[in-house]
Amino acid sequence: MAPRPRVPGRTATPTELDEETSMPAHAPRVLTGDRPTGALHLGHYFGSLQNRVRLQAEGAELFVVVADYQVLTDRDVAHRLAERVEELVLDYLAVGIDGERAVIFTHSAVPALNQLLLPFLSLVSAAELRRNPTVKDEISHSRQSAVSGLMLTYPVHQAADILFCKARLVPVGQDQLPHLEATRTIARRFNARYLSGGSPVFPEPEALLSAMPLLLGTDGTKMSKSRGNAIALGATEDETAALLKGARTDTERRITFDPQHRPEVSSLLQLAALCQGRDPHAVAEEIGDAGASRLKAVVTEAVNEYFRPIRRRRAELAGDRAHLRAVLAAGNARANAVADVTLVQVAEAMGMRY
Amino acid sequence: MAPRPRVPGRTATPTELDEETSMPAHAPRVLTGDRPTGALHLGHYFGSLQNRVRLQAEGAELFVVVADYQVLTDRDVAHRLAERVEELVLDYLAVGIDGERAVIFTHSAVPALNQLLLPFLSLVSAAELRRNPTVKDEISHSRQSAVSGLMLTYPVHQAADILFCKARLVPVGQDQLPHLEATRTIARRFNARYLSGGSPVFPEPEALLSAMPLLLGTDGTKMSKSRGNAIALGATEDETAALLKGARTDTERRITFDPQHRPEVSSLLQLAALCQGRDPHAVAEEIGDAGASRLKAVVTEAVNEYFRPIRRRRAELAGDRAHLRAVLAAGNARANAVADVTLVQVAEAMGMRY
Repeated sequence: MAPRPRVPGRTATPTELDEETSMPAHAPRVLTGDRPTGALHLGHYFGSLQNRVRLQAEGAELFVVVADYQVLTDRDVAHRLAERVEELVLDYLAVGIDGERAVIFTHSAVPALNQLLLPFLSLVSAAELRRNPTVKDEISHSRQSAVSGLMLTYPVHQAADILFCKARLVPVGQDQLPHLEATRTIARRFNARYLSGGSPVFPEPEALLSAMPLLLGTDGTKMSKSRGNAIALGATEDETAALLKGARTDTERRITFDPQHRPEVSSLLQLAALCQGRDPHAVAEEIGDAGASRLKAVVTEAVNEYFRPIRRRRAELAGDRAHLRAVLAAGNARANAVADVTLVQVAEAMGMRY
Repeated sequence: MAPRPRVPGRTATPTELDEETSMPAHAPRVLTGDRPTGALHLGHYFGSLQNRVRLQAEGAELFVVVADYQVLTDRDVAHRLAERVEELVLDYLAVGIDGERAVIFTHSAVPALNQLLLPFLSLVSAAELRRNPTVKDEISHSRQSAVSGLMLTYPVHQAADILFCKARLVPVGQDQLPHLEATRTIARRFNARYLSGGSPVFPEPEALLSAMPLLLGTDGTKMSKSRGNAIALGATEDETAALLKGARTDTERRITFDPQHRPEVSSLLQLAALCQGRDPHAVAEEIGDAGASRLKAVVTEAVNEYFRPIRRRRAELAGDRAHLRAVLAAGNARANAVADVTLVQVAEAMGMRY
C-alpha cells in the first residue's frame, strides 16, 4: 500500500465550514481534480484516486474539478470534450467517489469561480507568472512552440479552484508544490490587502503531500495515456492481460525488487503489491526463479482481482449516461452556490458593492 | 467642433441584433467605457463622451463598461471605489447618456463576461501579451515597478468586453488601435476554431476612429485627473474661472491659433471653440491684442455657458444616489442577460455542453 498520507491536525473550525454545506463541521474541504484528457489509468488510481476515496472515507468533503478549459490547447482532446468529461465522471464514480457527497464540477460551468481570476491576477506580477517552475516545466514539455496566455496564467486559475471553495487541503505530488505555494501567496496577499467585515476572506490551503508510487508504463517509461503504455481503469481483463504480457522486463530470470537497477520488473512488482496490499519484496520472493512470464501472470491476476468490483461498477454506470450528467449537473449547481457566496465576500472585501 | 466621426456602412442585420434587446434592429451596438479613477473632465468630454452621446442620438445602442477591476493596482482609487463608480455613472447621465437605453455596467457584476477571459487566453500567446504596444506603454508609464498579471492580460479582458455583447463599433483613439486589433484577432481565431451551429460566434468589431482634439491641462501638459490640471465636468463656475485664471499661457500679447508653436494658448482657444461650435482661428481673431487675460475670460465664459445645462443636470442627479444605483443595477442585469446568452453560444461552439 502507498504510505498513508498524513492529514494535518489543523482542520476548519465549525463556523468556518458548516455554513454553506450540510457536511459535518469537522470535515475538511479538499480540492482535487483532473484535466479531461481521456480514460484514467492505474497510475492515476494509485497516485491519486485511491487517496481521494480514502480522504472521503475519513470524512473529508471532496471538491473535484474537471478542468475542461485546461485542455483547449490539445486539439486531440478538444473535439471529443463532452465524451472525455463523461468518462472522467464515470471513472470517479467507479472508483468510489460519492456522487452525492462530493462536488464534481467543470470549470466552464462556474462563472463566479472563473471571475476570481481577475482580482487574483492583480496580486501577481508578470515576472512571477513566467517564473513558476511548473509552468516552466509545462512549457518545456509542451508540443506547441508558443506558450498560450492560458498556460501562463494557469497557477492563478488553480488558485481560483482552491480558494473559491476555501479548500483546506490539497493533495499534491512534490512537483505540484510550487502551484500550491502560488495559491497560498495569492490568499495571503488578498487577505493582507482586503478584509471582509474585519476578517480575512481566504484560508491558506495546506498541501497533503502523498508519496506517489512510481508506476511505469508497460514500455518502461512514465505511464501516460498519450504513450499507449497505460492500463486504463476501464480496461477488460483480457486487455489487461494482453498489455501486461507485452510489458517490458529484463533478461534476468530471478525476480527481485530493486527499483534502481531493475525499474521495469520492480514497477510490475509494485503494481501487484499495491493491488494485494503486500510488500513488493514478498511478491518477488514468491515468484523467485519463475521468471518474467510468471511475474506477468501474477500481476495480471492481482490487477484483475483488485479492479473487478471497480470495473463492474464502471460497466453498470456506463450504461446510465443520464445519471452521469445528473451527477455533474448537481455538482455544478453546488459549486456555483459556493462560488457565488465567495464572490460576494470578495466584492464586499474589495469595496465593490454598489 | 471635433470632426464628426464616420460611422462605417456595415451595420448589423436585423436577426443579429434584435433578439436580445428591444432596440431597433438597425442600431449598431457600440462598446465604450472608462476606468473609475475619479471625476471626468473636459478632456474626456470632448475626446469621448460627446461622441458617445452623438452616436446614441444616431440610434446606436451603447454598452458602457465601468472597468472596476482595472483600477485595482491604483491604491488611491481602490479604497474609494464605490464612490468613484457612482461619480462615473453620475457623469454619464449628466452629459446625456440615456440610463434607460444604454447598458451601463461594472466588470465585477458580470461573471459570464469575465469567464470569456479563459477561452480567449487560450487563443493568444504569452509573447503576444508582452508585445502589445499599449501594454508596453502602460508598463513604461506605470508607477509600479512590477507589471501585474492583470495588466499583462488587459487586452484579453478588453476583448471580453467587446465580444460578450458582440459590439460592432468601438470608438477609439489612434493609440488604442492595437487593443482593438487584439480583439479582432481573438474573434477571428475563435471563429476559425469553433463554430456554433455552423456559424461564427463573434462579429469582428470595427474601430470608430475619432480625431480627438488635444486639450492640454492648465499647466500646459496632458490633461489628467492625477496631475490636478484638469477642469472636471462637475466643477462649479467659480472653480472653472479660478482654474483657467491660473492656466499657463505665453508672453506674446497677440492671441493666435498656432498649436505647434503656441500649444498652451492654442489649447485654450480650442476649448472655447469646441464649446461655442466655432473655429479656433475665429476665436483668436476676435481676441486679437487683448492678451491672455481676455483669452481666459472668453474661455471661462464659453466653458461655463456650454456646461451649464450639463452641470445643472449633474447637480440634480447627485442628490438622488438611489437612482444612480438603480441605473447601474439595471445595466448590470441587462449585461448579465447578454453575457449569459453569449457564454452558452461559446460553450456550444466549444463542445462544452455536458
